[in-house]
Amino acid sequence: MKYDELFALLRRRGVLWPSAEIYGGAQGLYDYGPLGAALKRRVEEAWAAWFLGLSPDYHRIEPAEILPEAVVRASGHLENFTDPEIVCEQCHAAFRADTILEKVRPEGVDGLTPTEIAEVVSTHQLRCPNCGSRALGVPRAFNMMFGVDFGVTGRERAYLQPETAQASYLSFARMWDVGRKALPLGIAVVGKAYRNEIAPRQVLFRMRAFTQAELQIFFDPAHFDLPFDRVRDESLPVLRVPRREAGEESPEWVRASELVAPGGLPEFYVYHLAHTYRFYRDVLKYPIDRIRLFEKSDAERAFYNRIQFDVEVQLDSLHGFKELGAVHYRGDYDLGRHSQGSGRDLSVTLTSGEKVLPHVLELTFGVDRNVWALADTHLSKDGERTVWRLPPYLAPVPVGVFPLMPKHHSEYALRLADDLERAGVAARFDDAGTIGKRYARMDEAGTPYCVTVDGQTLDGDARDTVTLRDRDSKAQERVRAADLAGRLGPTLRPPRPPRA
Amino acid sequence: MKYDELFALLRRRGVLWPSAEIYGGAQGLYDYGPLGAALKRRVEEAWAAWFLGLSPDYHRIEPAEILPEAVVRASGHLENFTDPEIVCEQCHAAFRADTILEKVRPEGVDGLTPTEIAEVVSTHQLRCPNCGSRALGVPRAFNMMFGVDFGVTGRERAYLQPETAQASYLSFARMWDVGRKALPLGIAVVGKAYRNEIAPRQVLFRMRAFTQAELQIFFDPAHFDLPFDRVRDESLPVLRVPRREAGEESPEWVRASELVAPGGLPEFYVYHLAHTYRFYRDVLKYPIDRIRLFEKSDAERAFYNRIQFDVEVQLDSLHGFKELGAVHYRGDYDLGRHSQGSGRDLSVTLTSGEKVLPHVLELTFGVDRNVWALADTHLSKDGERTVWRLPPYLAPVPVGVFPLMPKHHSEYALRLADDLERAGVAARFDDAGTIGKRYARMDEAGTPYCVTVDGQTLDGDARDTVTLRDRDSKAQERVRAADLAGRLGPTLRPPRPPRA
Repeated sequence: MKYDELFALLRRRGVLWPSAEIYGGAQGLYDYGPLGAALKRRVEEAWAAWFLGLSPDYHRIEPAEILPEAVVRASGHLENFTDPEIVCEQCHAAFRADTILEKVRPEGVDGLTPTEIAEVVSTHQLRCPNCGSRALGVPRAFNMMFGVDFGVTGRERAYLQPETAQASYLSFARMWDVGRKALPLGIAVVGKAYRNEIAPRQVLFRMRAFTQAELQIFFDPAHFDLPFDRVRDESLPVLRVPRREAGEESPEWVRASELVAPGGLPEFYVYHLAHTYRFYRDVLKYPIDRIRLFEKSDAERAFYNRIQFDVEVQLDSLHGFKELGAVHYRGDYDLGRHSQGSGRDLSVTLTSGEKVLPHVLELTFGVDRNVWALADTHLSKDGERTVWRLPPYLAPVPVGVFPLMPKHHSEYALRLADDLERAGVAARFDDAGTIGKRYARMDEAGTPYCVTVDGQTLDGDARDTVTLRDRDSKAQERVRAADLAGRLGPTLRPPRPPRA
Repeated sequence: MKYDELFALLRRRGVLWPSAEIYGGAQGLYDYGPLGAALKRRVEEAWAAWFLGLSPDYHRIEPAEILPEAVVRASGHLENFTDPEIVCEQCHAAFRADTILEKVRPEGVDGLTPTEIAEVVSTHQLRCPNCGSRALGVPRAFNMMFGVDFGVTGRERAYLQPETAQASYLSFARMWDVGRKALPLGIAVVGKAYRNEIAPRQVLFRMRAFTQAELQIFFDPAHFDLPFDRVRDESLPVLRVPRREAGEESPEWVRASELVAPGGLPEFYVYHLAHTYRFYRDVLKYPIDRIRLFEKSDAERAFYNRIQFDVEVQLDSLHGFKELGAVHYRGDYDLGRHSQGSGRDLSVTLTSGEKVLPHVLELTFGVDRNVWALADTHLSKDGERTVWRLPPYLAPVPVGVFPLMPKHHSEYALRLADDLERAGVAARFDDAGTIGKRYARMDEAGTPYCVTVDGQTLDGDARDTVTLRDRDSKAQERVRAADLAGRLGPTLRPPRPPRA
């Protein structure tokens, strides 16, 4: 579907809508309605089940989302977390430099200095997208963090966290103390991040408040033993830098074993990259031919990232591949900076007696972006029918329960829906309109199973049986109501990584 | 346990700790470690299961947590969300007025004007708690919202939400449009709220960033039909205003039917108050003799609240009854203010053709406070043993899986823990120290079930059976490993309200 059509559908179905709508909205902020909120929670749970399932030494915490100034000074965000901004001196509208340069420089402005950006503006005589004047000002670095006047004296300064990662770095020492005192140690956070985007756009893709799911793995680069055999034969759709530089956009299939061949990528990196890829393919179930692992070049990566592949999925609504997550090898940059900034040595002593400043491998995942992408790739029109083919464990409402004739069958259906809920299977009763209309509504909401209570349920040989209808095959079968929870329940649990 | 002892234990076990510790902390901010984060999530899920279980018309959404200035102007927060603050002119330390007046006015300063507060200070010649001088300044109203410089022009102003309720009011019109277009309509939010407390203290009790779970029920005051019979005979531990004014602190048991007797409280209020009480008693399982429903007087309530009972639980660590939640009947104040503020008429037309501006009943619940209270009331020392008697569905780690002899039994135990996880039962493998030490560690973490794999598990007649040990009774029995998930799983689902 096209962007406008998809957004209109999601809004109409109460999946999401602009925040503070009745006040004209707040740019870059969105609210999730009942379906969207449930989908988002299930995506988060699926992420946690998969990535925490990789090791019993990976743990989830929930840190505060406000950082004191000393933290963002040490991390470099105070100085470097900026976007080049251009303000029109005529109409005072502000723009990200890349949007002004979009037509003449579609590859973006990463790596350009403000002076170089100004040169491009002047060479091409670019105009203000708002008023059309040529009075575009000098590009300046705009810090995207939201400052907060913390405390009552006005002398403390804090920031809404621009990423969840920092809070994990701050927690490392405490996690070491309360844990097994061994590496690797993984810290996972699902939390809000805040960025004062100059030009928020594309709904869930460039928001001012968004949810990240991130796993920071702290490890000893000299000893990170992993069951690499579990991924050795996995083929990955990588688009590496040389191929990109040759103008290719499509990935090529390369085995994990080849990626780690002498001179190649480290095993710990490829192991986690392969599991990350599997998550997008086997759990979120993006179409295989739409996923690519996009290697970032030296110039494109943040300087502290030694290796970076973005996970990109091709989205019709946004006309191309979009980044939905990434795997960053950050070296010892983070703990080094915070050791310096806090004055506390964050290196640890291993049982071998060796002292190590752990390195960090960061697995990052944009929750909102994936919610959008799951609509883009899984929601489609089949003639008259609009169907959201979410895997059962991601469906906001896994089971719809319908009384065939509300007057006669509602009491049974309501009780059945309640029984399912008590058995841990979320179910929604729906008695409005024809059965066909109710199926259509559930198809659109991504509900994989619909159950209908009818005359046979109440009486006769088929007593206490109901019709179970499958969203994707549209097949219907008669099953015992008492068997539903046992049968459907296991399909509602998100997959964990396969074991050896 | 005493406050210091309890906080030290929670910190040592990685339940929670001060945020940004390595930088000396950030006043009023806390991080949840693995056990605390899991407990907090389970408390949130238990809250949602119970309160959304009250009606299929109550829905959960996830709105943005930043509010444009127009919203907080309309809601009254810009003008009224203040605490009286006193700054010492000698040392410049800032204090909440109630802390300065604590000794001479233990009941607090609610309802006093700044001039009246200044009089108390001067009459009693109060001193600065920090430097001891008498140079306390004139009390002023300090707005407790955190402002955010939103957008890039510097001309937009926004605020971190001081409560989750406002976002629900903003969403009402959209929820009406996408829903059944009928009242009652319930909107539930579990989200962050932010308050720039002048004096954050008591760990999770007065935080600057905290989690609220709130259900806003929009209803037509002329027609709110409920199955009141379900609560009619429930006895509630109420402490009403006349009794309080007579100096009583302990509640008296009053039946729901008596509370609604002619001239009494409305049925819809008592119905939800009774279900709220049951949640604290039957789900969170606070000791019955520690809960009271504390009625607020006209002077104590916010002016828009027509009826308010706070749910209070007596906590040893904080020396008395503490507010953990409340039930507020807010009338039509909220939708009226936002109709005015936004210029959009938020009244709705019912199927009867009648136009109604819905009233709001707010069920509010402090998640962090309840996490603390669950430690205070359920965690205790039995001689040598420290046991956290959480109900199984709240336990951070419901099942511990131990190999009796790690060398021989770990492989089986690891696989069993993984099987349990795949069956939806969270389990943690632990092979460190003696079995006694492992039991002790799990007792302290609130784990209700421990499973031990031993020689019999691998061989002989009892093959594939394990020892299951119950935390509370310490009873041990031999059970088939394959039966564990089926047997323990149902106890890990939070209760829903009883049905008729």
